[in-house]
Amino acid sequence: MFRTHTCGELRLDNAGINVTLSGWVQRTREFGGMTFVDVRDRYGITQLVFNMSTDADLCEKANKLGREFVIQAKGTVSERTNKNPNLPTGDIEIMVNELTILNASKVPPFLVEEETDGGDDLRMKYRYLDLRRNNVQNNIILRHRVAQEARRYLCDNNFLEIETPFLIKSTPEGARDFVVPSRMNPGEFYALPQSPQTFKQLLMVSGFDKYFQIVRCFRDEDLRADRQPEFTQIDCEMSYVEQEDILQMFEGLLRHVFQAIKGVDLGEIQRMDFDDAMRLYGKDKPDTRFEMTFVELNDVAQNKGFKVFDAAELVVGICAKGCGNYTRKQLDGLTDWMKRPQIGAKGLVYVKCNEDGTFKSSVDKFFGQEELKAWADKMGAKPGDLLLIVSGNKEKARKQMGELRLEMGERLGLRKADEFKALWVLNFPLLERDEEAGRWNPCHHPFTRPQKGFESIENWGDIKADAYDFVLNGNEIAGGSIRIHERGLQEKVFELLGMSEEESEEKFGFLMGAFEYGAPPHGGIAFGFDRLCAIMGGAESIRDFIAFPKNNSGRDMMIDAPSLIDDEQYAELHILPNAELAD
Amino acid sequence: MFRTHTCGELRLDNAGINVTLSGWVQRTREFGGMTFVDVRDRYGITQLVFNMSTDADLCEKANKLGREFVIQAKGTVSERTNKNPNLPTGDIEIMVNELTILNASKVPPFLVEEETDGGDDLRMKYRYLDLRRNNVQNNIILRHRVAQEARRYLCDNNFLEIETPFLIKSTPEGARDFVVPSRMNPGEFYALPQSPQTFKQLLMVSGFDKYFQIVRCFRDEDLRADRQPEFTQIDCEMSYVEQEDILQMFEGLLRHVFQAIKGVDLGEIQRMDFDDAMRLYGKDKPDTRFEMTFVELNDVAQNKGFKVFDAAELVVGICAKGCGNYTRKQLDGLTDWMKRPQIGAKGLVYVKCNEDGTFKSSVDKFFGQEELKAWADKMGAKPGDLLLIVSGNKEKARKQMGELRLEMGERLGLRKADEFKALWVLNFPLLERDEEAGRWNPCHHPFTRPQKGFESIENWGDIKADAYDFVLNGNEIAGGSIRIHERGLQEKVFELLGMSEEESEEKFGFLMGAFEYGAPPHGGIAFGFDRLCAIMGGAESIRDFIAFPKNNSGRDMMIDAPSLIDDEQYAELHILPNAELAD
Repeated sequence: MFRTHTCGELRLDNAGINVTLSGWVQRTREFGGMTFVDVRDRYGITQLVFNMSTDADLCEKANKLGREFVIQAKGTVSERTNKNPNLPTGDIEIMVNELTILNASKVPPFLVEEETDGGDDLRMKYRYLDLRRNNVQNNIILRHRVAQEARRYLCDNNFLEIETPFLIKSTPEGARDFVVPSRMNPGEFYALPQSPQTFKQLLMVSGFDKYFQIVRCFRDEDLRADRQPEFTQIDCEMSYVEQEDILQMFEGLLRHVFQAIKGVDLGEIQRMDFDDAMRLYGKDKPDTRFEMTFVELNDVAQNKGFKVFDAAELVVGICAKGCGNYTRKQLDGLTDWMKRPQIGAKGLVYVKCNEDGTFKSSVDKFFGQEELKAWADKMGAKPGDLLLIVSGNKEKARKQMGELRLEMGERLGLRKADEFKALWVLNFPLLERDEEAGRWNPCHHPFTRPQKGFESIENWGDIKADAYDFVLNGNEIAGGSIRIHERGLQEKVFELLGMSEEESEEKFGFLMGAFEYGAPPHGGIAFGFDRLCAIMGGAESIRDFIAFPKNNSGRDMMIDAPSLIDDEQYAELHILPNAELAD
Repeated sequence: MFRTHTCGELRLDNAGINVTLSGWVQRTREFGGMTFVDVRDRYGITQLVFNMSTDADLCEKANKLGREFVIQAKGTVSERTNKNPNLPTGDIEIMVNELTILNASKVPPFLVEEETDGGDDLRMKYRYLDLRRNNVQNNIILRHRVAQEARRYLCDNNFLEIETPFLIKSTPEGARDFVVPSRMNPGEFYALPQSPQTFKQLLMVSGFDKYFQIVRCFRDEDLRADRQPEFTQIDCEMSYVEQEDILQMFEGLLRHVFQAIKGVDLGEIQRMDFDDAMRLYGKDKPDTRFEMTFVELNDVAQNKGFKVFDAAELVVGICAKGCGNYTRKQLDGLTDWMKRPQIGAKGLVYVKCNEDGTFKSSVDKFFGQEELKAWADKMGAKPGDLLLIVSGNKEKARKQMGELRLEMGERLGLRKADEFKALWVLNFPLLERDEEAGRWNPCHHPFTRPQKGFESIENWGDIKADAYDFVLNGNEIAGGSIRIHERGLQEKVFELLGMSEEESEEKFGFLMGAFEYGAPPHGGIAFGFDRLCAIMGGAESIRDFIAFPKNNSGRDMMIDAPSLIDDEQYAELHILPNAELAD
């Protein structure tokens, strides 16, 4: 037997008993003829003691232990004279009488401590060592717990976890599929699922009533900073439901998970119209941990002779509380920040609300104190506040102001990692016009149901969808919709999306066929599990919540994948390398 | 709201209340001015009643309902005069006052009943209808429950569920990999995992201590009758364990699952040496639901002048209880069965133990009554029994006899689907000689640890492994081993397997590297989840325990995958179609 106890288990109550521990050497210290070794495992750290005067050989052996050696120690639990109140095992130590080195270790390429000296690339190459660091290990354990609690809630609510296939059919549209050449079916390919969407709908047609799966999905997209080619969803679907049933069920899920794991009550989940989210926050995933909502100023700022405003579709501002004392340099910095290509604003208008009740603005030339006061009043500003205003095309101005609002929230410390604000965004448009391609695109996906009464709406662009997003701290954590369950309506939507009858039949004939054999009304949702875990862990990046992530080129640096395959594999798969590999 | 209750929920207690149900029309019956409609969902069946004299229009509407129509009915729960004791809802019916057709249905291509008239291909094409059949639906629900109970046990025992990547590195050997061309890394491919083996070992190096995952795995092999290209494993690994720790932990897992789901106590789990399994059952996965073990007859059957036996390495028999009355035709049939190419026996010797104490044998010419009696005594035969004997090369004779034993067990009804007999098979050889290739092959896999003391054994073929299989009713349900955790030993094994230093470094350098940074002793196991579910469901085939299985050509008949991809996809993936598609 390698151990009688873990390294996090022994307490004062255990004093006097003989134990065997196994684990990693965290560090060793020699002091006054004694050697102290901290031995670590997943469960904690225990102090081992060796005494030169009692057993010199054993103590010498301990002195030679290196960091991350794997050892087994036998000895007696003993009360410490020098207790460590920061450690659950801090009241005891082990007087060791037998020490075995189970496996030696080279000196790790970086410090295996919470604060490490390892750079990103080194940490990724030696991910198995990075995962030993307490904070990274705790992220993975948090992920395990979130998964189990989500499952518990869904099982308690009669959901069935049903596995759907990974080798499916390529239906290129939206994101790119990863494909898998078939050896047994020459010239044909499987695709890896971007989500189990059609399968979960078929499970509803089959009568499973409530389905979920915590499932890997795949998207071959150019990787942005925090995207992974493979990611995990909590994927759910229910039959005989309306939107309200779904909202209730799944805010319940998050409520349960946050309560069970963080001890946090999410409170009442706000509901916001998509239109309001865009108008007040400039985003369909507003960060509602702080106010600073948009105020539209067209009525008080236009037709006063300032041509930039007069020509704008929208003049919109935010009030940054307590920033009235920003220096010229700070304000210029903000303006430059807004002018970067990522934001693309042409400029930024400011109004400082001085403590003496006067106003100082970058557009003093065009607007008097009275007029600036009218703006300030409209924006609820107090002396000491700062108004920040952009103008232009409505969509662009909102987008720019949305970014500025987040930046000011960040600077003011209003986006706290340990505060959680959730809301539903509702009433999305069903379709958005792709003028270039001369057709409509789905806002959510092509299986989304238009809201009741859509038949009498003439302009397809005005039709709203029974779709919903769950937004947490400015991140879209989940999205879903009530689905179409009739063949006719589904055909109509495919047609609007510019698909020919043959094309929609080839790609989704099986689904439309299923709709003809008694498909029930149904709807569902999918949670971005990696992101949910990262937010619950108070982190920005999902990477440290995935045991073996890939880098921005889609490479696994540790195992060095992808890699070359040999000629025999090419031949068996009925494909050839394309000589023109230069892209 | 689509429903106030499910179709399996209402009881006599609910009589008098108004309810709304939604579900599928199972069948309709008109009888004496009344129409009865059985409405079905996952939870059960409820009888709806329509009365021509009360509401003729409504009743007419009900009369027009077809099988599998999706309906919503509102009405009052009422006590039945004609109760149905076979149905949990059989005490009540719903007097309907409002009926809505939510979705019509074409007539299904086969009967959606437990006993269906649909052939395999039709059922696979319309899998979403096949999944509506009670028995198939129950298989999928059983699978859900097995997964949840397995998880519960593992979580209660401190295992962490950790997800490992699906896009990994191709290391062709043993089974073929499915590969995925990388768009971002021209000329390179990912592979889909045949199992998370190396990743779970790295998780042990990382100190996660106890890992599990219920995870999809992929093997591009020619599909035998009951194999799928994608299958599911319960994959587990533990640190600081010896074989005994693993056996205890995982027989506990199966004990829990069988108790929780089947109410079955697996009893003490037998342990059998690989050598004994081969000697007594001719298989490393013996079906121990019945005895009929092999008896080796060399000492009593050789050197009596029967050349076939005299020349044989092994003469081995089984005693089929109560089969002494087999007719000549039956015996000839058995002999023919053994001579089929799948079995490949040259013949079959029989001895009938007559009720009068005499013996009748196909080798009467060579053996007298006394000699046949000696055989019978050695085999524990009684009057009325039948001895069946083969001879030849030891390995082949055992294999043939192993098949015959199963066949006789089947004919005698000794392989009961509702009886469960489990055992561990232990002490496998580490390696087996591939004479053709002039090298060793691993019996389990190359990461398996040789048993203590192996250094002093000269012939590698004599070294046993710390490997173990869990066998249930003649199926290998799980297999695993204690792993190598030292670089040197792992290098040695790769060398024995005929891998060059460069090759092993390229394929498994990351793992051997990890072994140098404090890898703990560890071991694990993987359960074939599809097979486990099938056996628990009392079925032979795994196919009906997988929601969307593929056929023997690896095709999904429902979605028609795999399929062609377009030129643009080929170009993006840096591959070309191979014109010589004819195989």
